[in-house]
Amino acid sequence: MKRLGILLSGRGSNFEAIARSIEEGRLNAEIAVVISNRAEAPGIEIALARGLKAVHISSKGLDREAYDAQLVKELKENHVELVCLAGYMRMLSASFVREFPMRILNIHPSLLPAFPGLDAQHQAFEYGVKISGCTVHFVDEQLDHGPIVLQAHVPVLATDDSDTLAARILKEEHRIYSEAVAIVLNGRYRVEGRRVIEEV
Amino acid sequence: MKRLGILLSGRGSNFEAIARSIEEGRLNAEIAVVISNRAEAPGIEIALARGLKAVHISSKGLDREAYDAQLVKELKENHVELVCLAGYMRMLSASFVREFPMRILNIHPSLLPAFPGLDAQHQAFEYGVKISGCTVHFVDEQLDHGPIVLQAHVPVLATDDSDTLAARILKEEHRIYSEAVAIVLNGRYRVEGRRVIEEV
Repeated sequence: MKRLGILLSGRGSNFEAIARSIEEGRLNAEIAVVISNRAEAPGIEIALARGLKAVHISSKGLDREAYDAQLVKELKENHVELVCLAGYMRMLSASFVREFPMRILNIHPSLLPAFPGLDAQHQAFEYGVKISGCTVHFVDEQLDHGPIVLQAHVPVLATDDSDTLAARILKEEHRIYSEAVAIVLNGRYRVEGRRVIEEV
Repeated sequence: MKRLGILLSGRGSNFEAIARSIEEGRLNAEIAVVISNRAEAPGIEIALARGLKAVHISSKGLDREAYDAQLVKELKENHVELVCLAGYMRMLSASFVREFPMRILNIHPSLLPAFPGLDAQHQAFEYGVKISGCTVHFVDEQLDHGPIVLQAHVPVLATDDSDTLAARILKEEHRIYSEAVAIVLNGRYRVEGRRVIEEV
């Protein structure tokens, strides 16, 4: 059974979606550990309630490298093969990324490369795009930048505000994150340049 | 009947798509004039063969302002109400844009704001996006930047190269350009900030 490590800072609804996919037999994996950088992250309680291992690692007084070294230690001790970011609100250091080459996934609520960074749904809404969506990508050393595993699109409707748009995107996030994890765990893909090509 | 002016530099397949929409009664407008900056643009012959007025305006020896003043003159003499760029490979000057405020449309073969500029389909392919598409937008003084009227998406398939992707996008371009022209001519929209909101 492939072992996942989840990093989150809040509720981590995408973590819950992955947990549900596993529970319902749609994803063949197990969640080895859930790690939060914030003690009060609801995702910790949710993980514990599901009987999962969940830990808070405080960043107090630690620089990024020192903090990320602790993350790496925790993940390795739990034999994590694939790291999934689920609303993890800290940049990962280059040395963390190098510890898990092409073994870290993130989900971002826009069709990257459009609208990287914070508040992507609001950015997209204000820009006036007619189509937005979400992206699961490998994490590299640049923000919201690594090779793309899956994307899903949603329409932006005349009646939308940025909250209704965000809700529509979130539904797609919950769907494609598990699908992307399955693709990566199954290894049925190759990478050419930046292109992740599924081998069916 | 609302009068369109078309600017092109090559074949202008999006011009042909608009002409077909008019011919088949799907778009209530007429093409008043087709203007090319290149004498050898196939679009001129195609326009003439359709019985449309088509002219070449040479840019030889003219700076952008002087050239664009000639374009404006030709368009105004033909009582053009909406200018449609169809593969027009010159930047328009700010003074041209000011002559037709929110009355110039362009079509771009990507989901803007992703992949502005040349060779957008190839850019998207190399970036490894899983979803691309095309965008009809008002032209403002920045490249591929004005408020978006319509977008359409296409999938990027594992078997694609950038040519097959470009062909799939082009089919959507031919569909949505006429739709966007109809929306603008009908005036059933309002603009809030950058957002073009259709009023149905």
